Amino acid sequence: MSLIERLADEFARLPGIGRKTALRLTYHVLKITPADAGRLAGAIMAAAEQIRPCEVCGGYTETSPCAFCLNPRRDRSMICVVEEASDITPIEGTGYYHGLYHVLGGRLSPLDGIGPDELNIPALLRRVREAGSSPVSEVVLATNPSVEGEATALYLHRMLSPLGVRVSRIARGLPVGGDLEYADGVTIAEALEHRREL
Amino acid sequence: MSLIERLADEFARLPGIGRKTALRLTYHVLKITPADAGRLAGAIMAAAEQIRPCEVCGGYTETSPCAFCLNPRRDRSMICVVEEASDITPIEGTGYYHGLYHVLGGRLSPLDGIGPDELNIPALLRRVREAGSSPVSEVVLATNPSVEGEATALYLHRMLSPLGVRVSRIARGLPVGGDLEYADGVTIAEALEHRREL
Repeated sequence: MSLIERLADEFARLPGIGRKTALRLTYHVLKITPADAGRLAGAIMAAAEQIRPCEVCGGYTETSPCAFCLNPRRDRSMICVVEEASDITPIEGTGYYHGLYHVLGGRLSPLDGIGPDELNIPALLRRVREAGSSPVSEVVLATNPSVEGEATALYLHRMLSPLGVRVSRIARGLPVGGDLEYADGVTIAEALEHRREL
Repeated sequence: MSLIERLADEFARLPGIGRKTALRLTYHVLKITPADAGRLAGAIMAAAEQIRPCEVCGGYTETSPCAFCLNPRRDRSMICVVEEASDITPIEGTGYYHGLYHVLGGRLSPLDGIGPDELNIPALLRRVREAGSSPVSEVVLATNPSVEGEATALYLHRMLSPLGVRVSRIARGLPVGGDLEYADGVTIAEALEHRREL
């Protein structure tokens, strides 16, 4: 196989990159300088080799525990539970949340053989139970509003409630800037059900 | 800057990759094994360092002259002129063309300061003029059907005609599977003008 085909194959392995995009990226690599290509290849290797899960929250980090878990300015009484480490970025982007995180590494999906033991759930229960001097008062379940995300949230609610911690779920409703005309019925029904008095 | 941000920045430099896609690719790299990441990084470096322009046609190759130029089964009497090396793949994909190629490395674009000297044109004229034992009988101009691609084709036609070689231009018209209703007026006019008797 030629080097061009080999690189195109590697690019095509990436999620959301089809054959045509893979070829476009390949020809881009051929146009840039070897130094620029080296920066890309080096960044890939450095990330793959040096980034690992935080021993506390399961998020990606170069040093464990991660910067969130070590940061004394974060509110240690709140833990926001997300499915994937990549879900932290959009939440941080809001600038609204200042607590800690916990990354499950997926969601319950019995059909795919993913039960509670396959997820980072025991560590979450341990964190809540053994919080020590700064107890956890609330766990925010921020799994995705999908069938499996909801099932995961329900399961976590059942496991966390006996520990005497407040368990909340992120709100569902119409997205800001959304349009009633184009929203699906379930979302509209949820938005009506959880309406708030003004 | 964290390794995650560094990698996301590198991915975002690639053409057609926005900030969100760059982050998605970054998290993908964190999920695969270091060995798989090494294969991707290695393919990037190998391509960037070992692939260079063919000394004859200007196409990308690991060994110069390239496989097309050396292949004794290719029709040496025809040269297909393309703007970029990436244009060869779709033409080869048709299985219809069996001649040689010549890569210009762009198209005439005076506003961007790209004149004939910035393109691989002198080498093309030399190839036609000094073909030796297997003379070139036809040059197919397969630059893109854009304003600049047409201008480049016209210029090449003017330069090549005095050399006593047949110069042709790829046909324009409605794409196969296309729809009159959605075609632009210029394309329809060209399709009418170049209609063929059945």
